[in-house]
Amino acid sequence: MFVSFRRQRCAMAAALSLWALFLAPFEPARAATVAEAQSPDGSLRVSVVVEDEGKLSYRVDRKGVALIADSRLGMLLGNGRLERNLAFVSKSTSPHDDTWEQPWGERQFVRNRYNELRVAIGETLGAKRRFDVVFRLYEDGLGFRYEFPEQGPEPVVIEEELTEFNLAHEGTAWWIPAGEWNREEYLYHRTPIEAIGFAQTPVTAKLADGTHVSIHEAALVDYSGMNLVRVDGRRLKSVLTPGEGVGKVVRLAPFHTPWRTVQVADDASGLAMSSLILNLNEPNKLGNVSWFKPMKYAGVWWEMHLDSKTWSSGPRHGATNENVIRHIDFAAKNGFKGVLVEGWNLGWDGHWFGDGGEFDFTRSYPDFDLPKLSAYAKSKGVQLIGHHETAGNVARYESQLDAALALYQRMGVNAVKTGYVADAGDIQLRGADGKLRRAWHEGQDMARHHLKVVSEAAKHHIAINAHEPIKSTGLRRTYPNWISNEGARGMEYNAWGKPPNPPEHEANLVFTRLLAGPMDFTPGILSLSGAKGMPIQSTLAKQLALYVVLYSPIQMVPDLPEHYERYPDAFQFIKDVAVDWSDTRVLNGEVGDYATVARKQRGGDDWFLGSISDENARTLKVPLDFLDVGKTYRAEIYRDGADAHWKDERFSFARESRDVRRGEVLSIRLAPGGGQAIRFTPVDGR
Amino acid sequence: MFVSFRRQRCAMAAALSLWALFLAPFEPARAATVAEAQSPDGSLRVSVVVEDEGKLSYRVDRKGVALIADSRLGMLLGNGRLERNLAFVSKSTSPHDDTWEQPWGERQFVRNRYNELRVAIGETLGAKRRFDVVFRLYEDGLGFRYEFPEQGPEPVVIEEELTEFNLAHEGTAWWIPAGEWNREEYLYHRTPIEAIGFAQTPVTAKLADGTHVSIHEAALVDYSGMNLVRVDGRRLKSVLTPGEGVGKVVRLAPFHTPWRTVQVADDASGLAMSSLILNLNEPNKLGNVSWFKPMKYAGVWWEMHLDSKTWSSGPRHGATNENVIRHIDFAAKNGFKGVLVEGWNLGWDGHWFGDGGEFDFTRSYPDFDLPKLSAYAKSKGVQLIGHHETAGNVARYESQLDAALALYQRMGVNAVKTGYVADAGDIQLRGADGKLRRAWHEGQDMARHHLKVVSEAAKHHIAINAHEPIKSTGLRRTYPNWISNEGARGMEYNAWGKPPNPPEHEANLVFTRLLAGPMDFTPGILSLSGAKGMPIQSTLAKQLALYVVLYSPIQMVPDLPEHYERYPDAFQFIKDVAVDWSDTRVLNGEVGDYATVARKQRGGDDWFLGSISDENARTLKVPLDFLDVGKTYRAEIYRDGADAHWKDERFSFARESRDVRRGEVLSIRLAPGGGQAIRFTPVDGR
Repeated sequence: MFVSFRRQRCAMAAALSLWALFLAPFEPARAATVAEAQSPDGSLRVSVVVEDEGKLSYRVDRKGVALIADSRLGMLLGNGRLERNLAFVSKSTSPHDDTWEQPWGERQFVRNRYNELRVAIGETLGAKRRFDVVFRLYEDGLGFRYEFPEQGPEPVVIEEELTEFNLAHEGTAWWIPAGEWNREEYLYHRTPIEAIGFAQTPVTAKLADGTHVSIHEAALVDYSGMNLVRVDGRRLKSVLTPGEGVGKVVRLAPFHTPWRTVQVADDASGLAMSSLILNLNEPNKLGNVSWFKPMKYAGVWWEMHLDSKTWSSGPRHGATNENVIRHIDFAAKNGFKGVLVEGWNLGWDGHWFGDGGEFDFTRSYPDFDLPKLSAYAKSKGVQLIGHHETAGNVARYESQLDAALALYQRMGVNAVKTGYVADAGDIQLRGADGKLRRAWHEGQDMARHHLKVVSEAAKHHIAINAHEPIKSTGLRRTYPNWISNEGARGMEYNAWGKPPNPPEHEANLVFTRLLAGPMDFTPGILSLSGAKGMPIQSTLAKQLALYVVLYSPIQMVPDLPEHYERYPDAFQFIKDVAVDWSDTRVLNGEVGDYATVARKQRGGDDWFLGSISDENARTLKVPLDFLDVGKTYRAEIYRDGADAHWKDERFSFARESRDVRRGEVLSIRLAPGGGQAIRFTPVDGR
Repeated sequence: MFVSFRRQRCAMAAALSLWALFLAPFEPARAATVAEAQSPDGSLRVSVVVEDEGKLSYRVDRKGVALIADSRLGMLLGNGRLERNLAFVSKSTSPHDDTWEQPWGERQFVRNRYNELRVAIGETLGAKRRFDVVFRLYEDGLGFRYEFPEQGPEPVVIEEELTEFNLAHEGTAWWIPAGEWNREEYLYHRTPIEAIGFAQTPVTAKLADGTHVSIHEAALVDYSGMNLVRVDGRRLKSVLTPGEGVGKVVRLAPFHTPWRTVQVADDASGLAMSSLILNLNEPNKLGNVSWFKPMKYAGVWWEMHLDSKTWSSGPRHGATNENVIRHIDFAAKNGFKGVLVEGWNLGWDGHWFGDGGEFDFTRSYPDFDLPKLSAYAKSKGVQLIGHHETAGNVARYESQLDAALALYQRMGVNAVKTGYVADAGDIQLRGADGKLRRAWHEGQDMARHHLKVVSEAAKHHIAINAHEPIKSTGLRRTYPNWISNEGARGMEYNAWGKPPNPPEHEANLVFTRLLAGPMDFTPGILSLSGAKGMPIQSTLAKQLALYVVLYSPIQMVPDLPEHYERYPDAFQFIKDVAVDWSDTRVLNGEVGDYATVARKQRGGDDWFLGSISDENARTLKVPLDFLDVGKTYRAEIYRDGADAHWKDERFSFARESRDVRRGEVLSIRLAPGGGQAIRFTPVDGR
């Protein structure tokens, strides 16, 4: 028995004859557009529709062409479905236009210009619940969220969010699978949109007409992460990350969901220029954060992945005074401001994965003298970077969090790398009720935990770089000490990955994961080999280019000191490259194929350019329109050798320099799996 | 940071050097086959594999060719993931071969021949939990389930089941979407396997080599229904239907999951011959159920869907004494044993959809005299068929269940149609704790409820035919009074569906929904029009053929008496056709295109044949090999007229008869959207 029919029957006044329903049986369900709005530049238009069963949906046009076809809005709540019998109550629109400054970032100033549409919706039956749907329309996309008004002392239990994204046109999509609820460390699928399965966000797609879209979310606060399942056709539907206990999200109203975001541009490089995710987050809540400075850092890390050292104690322990001093000297000598040390604290000797019951966040192994090493580092103008691996034992970590942060603060450590190496279901934390419960990496409990760590760390003037994190959703705007995240396959897969990262991997990251925020990828393995000499599928020059292409305010120089000594020419770029930017231009790119990015050093006049390719060779024409007018620049070029190739000629490399000026067109030749890095320095008096 | 590496590191004895891991970095994860078994006929072989991280998977070959590639086994439990660090403990195999009798069904005797493989698995770490995976291998497919041994007083909380079905070859799939958690009333998608989205089961696929498979489940008892999400490629993964409260399933061990089933055959007709789902259910627990007899039934129903009558009271009330008597007389005159009456009881006048707060299951509207009508029916050799619409208010229904069933038993009613017209989240019932909670149509709570109704009904010698039911999983074997279900788009969509059922709909049902069990489709609308004269996309002959093609032990004769009077020739077949069978042969078919089924009347010598087509005309050669040797049969043929067409010549119809014998080949011509029905009656002395 079909429901909408009976439902309709009951929703209508008894007087209204059913015959009305049958006037044109073949005509699709009648729908009324109850609200519309467009972006300030007029390119994007959203329409909010109430169908004749009282179902709520939205659609989006761009430049007069459908971008998102009718897509459902709604919730499955613990006290019933909030999706049918909905009626339009009221609407309001308001423009907004301001420009805000990032303490550090891809660009110093960000323009935040949008039109907001607020639509108030009410149930016509049952509990007569009310909620608003709020849209913000930008030139580079839109965000929308649900807002629940005050509704008594009972918490709102969200069993599922029914939000849909029904892409109007065919195209190719890039995505990683969801459903393991584990981590974001997968190789990217490149499939037709109609072949998307169950995906984590961002999901990026290139539509038939070349338009690029990416679906993600912004400001994931006290809510579960959104995944997308393709129900059928090109209709993607929200599936919230689960967790233990009642509902996927439990909140006291008033509250609002994260922003559901659709970034859109005419091409891939336009997509990578978008600031939508940042703009949809709240302004800085921490005030002055000048106690953290973007930096490059070395560390005791790669040697563990090579298995020449261990995290655990014993003859091959990596975090020894002697070895750490070696790295401090290396950092100091080359101008790197930080030294990460993993495996310094007690707890690595047992079975720690997904357990972490032995980790101690204030007590170090006897062969690691934290005060002495901190002092030594300081004497060298370097600081240690802290490390807190939880293995998912969040309850234990939180119980030591304040002491752990206070210790680091005393030691002059102002950046900590956290880790959550655990499977879904391994993570345990204490709920609001103080009881131990399981959590998923991207569930509501972990969203709360990550913000708690970031907020507590801020009080101790410590910045956080989370690995196996919750997804990035632009919260670095509100909490600038959340400087970076991992959240994708990083360099360590080139040490032991089965398979290691393919040559296209970073060209996928630029247009997917990196749209969400900075990534601590740790580029720069100039030795180009992993454990047992497993070759890294990259050229030498590409390793340099990654420092510009993959943005992070904290960039590791991860290879072993003795390895860098072997490649002084290439290493020079790593020493020179900036980590903080006043401006960024994505000059060209195709998802998964190639990308070229130019960034202007913040607090300086230098520009840096990075260009990377997938497994194919290509030559890119790059107009130097970003350089200042009338200035001559010395271009220090680090390029692939003529015969360079990711397979067999990985080390074929050339360094050369020439003078260039704005308006010139640079021809950048990238080898298969190759790259190019350039430093542009203004030359006085020319 | 990649996990399997560290995990491996910890899982191994400390002594074992990591180098072992790197001997061949590019080689896939090592896997060990720990158990194997094959079907009695040797066609199917299953292998159970433990991968080097202690992940459990299985694969299936058929006739030496991969059918299901490595597919994950595991659970996400409230107390952690049961999926890594698993080790083989022991295995045992046992053959089984018996034949059992159905009280009614598609065939009288069913052979249940399989080899069982039991694999005991244990966790190597953490809680050291234990469980078994049990496989049963048949010629027509396999089933497997998880069995949890006794493990203390704490209930096992299942957050998700990680079971995968990774189809080894490309092919075409037929499926309906999941994720609304509402009902099973959707049009079928026909897509490449790689374009399956989020699907309800059964999911049926035709592989490149012609092999047909269908994935479903058997014996869904006290557990949540399984849906399938295509994560990527051809890898389908279980998503259990959610519900309110903690976990998707909560059970006290020992317990086992339903059987996850894979039916397989060389062609579509072979698939439709499978008894796998029934065989994987427990034997009859009710004993003698002769108090119910398969029957055809008329009723007060279609006129409401035409909106000439109403369920609610008032001038157009359908369930009046006068109108019911009219239907009783019609049934009696034509030999139909039952008369369904909807809208007889109090509660239909308010907003009942998804509410049902007014429904009274023992008190009737004043214009409906249950005792009088029951007595009148009995005097005519007819019985009333009861109706219990809950609108999802299961709590209210259960509170009146015993009284409602007792009343019907007193009135001589021994079949009841139940209904659950509600959306996910609208359904409310009382949990084990007596508290009101929401439920989803196919969640664990509803699995419990449906079996409760069926069990209670049996005590009152009442059979149940559930609409908007939980999916069919063969429980009719164990509880034979669960005679039928709806659970797909039925005939009523042809009254007001937008769109109505397309001509291919029933040819989809035969190879998808009907694999799960009987369906109360209610064929036989000879007037071929819905509300406002909306044309039904079928020929007259096809309406007759559906009585044979779509199996149910209770078949409705739903059209209005005056409509049947208009088509005496066609109506004759509906009067003659049997509803219980000693044998069934699916003679040919292609999913969504056509199907021909022959069935032998139980307790008689007649054979009946039904053949249906989609929107295309076709001529099928049908060898009459099912007829008895040496007998001559009078074939009463009800066929499409030469110009019949579902669009404009729906009523073009011919009836003819001829003598036939086994060995002859019948040429069956089906019009576009057409069908053919034949009754074969042995002719004495020839």
